[in-house]
Amino acid sequence: MSRLIDVADAAAMLSTAEDVLLLTHQYPDGDTIGSAFALCRALRGLGKRARVACADAIPEKYDYLFEDLEEQDFEPQLIVAVDVADPKLLGSLQSVYNGRIDLCIDHHGSNVAYADHLLLRADYAAAAMVVCEVLRAMNVTFTSAIAECIYTGLSTDTGCFKYSNAGAYAHRMAADMMDIGIRYDMINRTMFDIKSRARVELERRALSGMRFYRNDKIAVMPITCAMIDESGAAENDMEGLAPLPRQIEGVWVGVTLREKANKEFKISVRTGNHADAAAICKELGGGGHVRAAGCSLQGELDDVIQTMVDTIVSVVDRI
Amino acid sequence: MSRLIDVADAAAMLSTAEDVLLLTHQYPDGDTIGSAFALCRALRGLGKRARVACADAIPEKYDYLFEDLEEQDFEPQLIVAVDVADPKLLGSLQSVYNGRIDLCIDHHGSNVAYADHLLLRADYAAAAMVVCEVLRAMNVTFTSAIAECIYTGLSTDTGCFKYSNAGAYAHRMAADMMDIGIRYDMINRTMFDIKSRARVELERRALSGMRFYRNDKIAVMPITCAMIDESGAAENDMEGLAPLPRQIEGVWVGVTLREKANKEFKISVRTGNHADAAAICKELGGGGHVRAAGCSLQGELDDVIQTMVDTIVSVVDRI
Repeated sequence: MSRLIDVADAAAMLSTAEDVLLLTHQYPDGDTIGSAFALCRALRGLGKRARVACADAIPEKYDYLFEDLEEQDFEPQLIVAVDVADPKLLGSLQSVYNGRIDLCIDHHGSNVAYADHLLLRADYAAAAMVVCEVLRAMNVTFTSAIAECIYTGLSTDTGCFKYSNAGAYAHRMAADMMDIGIRYDMINRTMFDIKSRARVELERRALSGMRFYRNDKIAVMPITCAMIDESGAAENDMEGLAPLPRQIEGVWVGVTLREKANKEFKISVRTGNHADAAAICKELGGGGHVRAAGCSLQGELDDVIQTMVDTIVSVVDRI
Repeated sequence: MSRLIDVADAAAMLSTAEDVLLLTHQYPDGDTIGSAFALCRALRGLGKRARVACADAIPEKYDYLFEDLEEQDFEPQLIVAVDVADPKLLGSLQSVYNGRIDLCIDHHGSNVAYADHLLLRADYAAAAMVVCEVLRAMNVTFTSAIAECIYTGLSTDTGCFKYSNAGAYAHRMAADMMDIGIRYDMINRTMFDIKSRARVELERRALSGMRFYRNDKIAVMPITCAMIDESGAAENDMEGLAPLPRQIEGVWVGVTLREKANKEFKISVRTGNHADAAAICKELGGGGHVRAAGCSLQGELDDVIQTMVDTIVSVVDRI
């Protein structure tokens, strides 16, 4: 179990530390990367050595967050995990660092309290918001580069201020970062607009294959191995497909089926007010949240779809 | 020519007025509708009669902005246009009200100063931001319903805080509206996520027909009458298609060609840092902004595309 600490404690730990290693979660996103590089830049600005480690390659689109930073090699004296709710999420770094993490800064209510010290703000939209408070408590001078790291975490974890977690505090913090001077239009275009041609191809094929049931209240979008091959899509082209079926007017339950090897399907279910995604997926051995949940099924595509539709009909009233 | 007035002047005009008619622009969007109903609600809250007029039917998705308001019928004593840069944009209401508009509240630098009094903030992202300042100067008590009107204008005109116009002031105003209590997640989902099935069909067909030129730096997306017919798309399904070609990685110039009757094409050009959309369209008798411009061409689809590509190549360096 972790000792729960507050912002001032975390600021004190970082202010007195030397040679800090910052760990992100695997399959890194804008919040874990932005949080880690905000800290890295701030610590270096204070004359300390600091570096960021991630189990996976950081996608190219995040280059602007760190491309000017020089490599630093050192034996870490303080190890800090940011936006990492569970040591499992460190991926291949888990075996190296588990049990040695001094501080975790996070915003996931599900944090398993694995670090020696835990600074947790479960009501914040992004870990970058917690990091911002820590840097303020350290009296760090916010450069544009630091502000861009914080803004990136904020913007990506709120879907560019679209989701319910994008509250007043998130907007005010974004405004504060803008006051410092950030390239927010470039950041948002890079994060939200630009798609690879393979991704566009895949989306087109996936939309063509969409099937509707129960007066179009259920939309099922299969993404088969053949579609992925034909479009030339890579793993990072697959992000953000799950919400598409539920974005269609009148759809209560949107289902995305992604074919893996051996006729195994990874299934994402998205719902609105009318249906409980977690309840649907639980029937099939999966789980998740009320509006977004998942499960896995094996079999022929048509059979898997039939199972999904039958389960939805059995769980959701009046569909 | 208009008399240019400030926020306090506009507040005084509205505070002393009775029986106010609020005019929106044709093909109404979230900013003109949000601005008009924010004013309408505030004026009614002060015990005055007020109503909103628009040349076109207001799309259903905006119902939440006014569905609780009762109809009021009266001969207007004060006529106010909001977010209307030119009387032409009043559509069929132009012939009725042109020359009779007492006050225009706007944020378009291109406003032609047609109203008796003009309150213009060309550096604001949305007309709703100007309206918010006027309501504050009137000491109006902001209800949740008024705050939702203001937020809707802000959010829609900034692409949910994604565009370059979404600066610090816009974020802080959004936060202020959230403090009052608004359903911003419902609003953003309604404005940005939900698509009709016909729209999805049309998008799929349009993406399938996309053509690439000059090492994929130019992407051209024709939207033909046949595509529109086959997908069953209506006029309000056509919004927001123009940015799609430029969202593809590596594309400098994105062109959307929408076929009208008689082999006439309405053309939208979108560019990034590498090209000037206005310069391209100017060559073909059109115009617009550096990043977004338009023109019209007549002819066979293939000839029109060739003309566009040739013009782009002649105007844009190193493409």
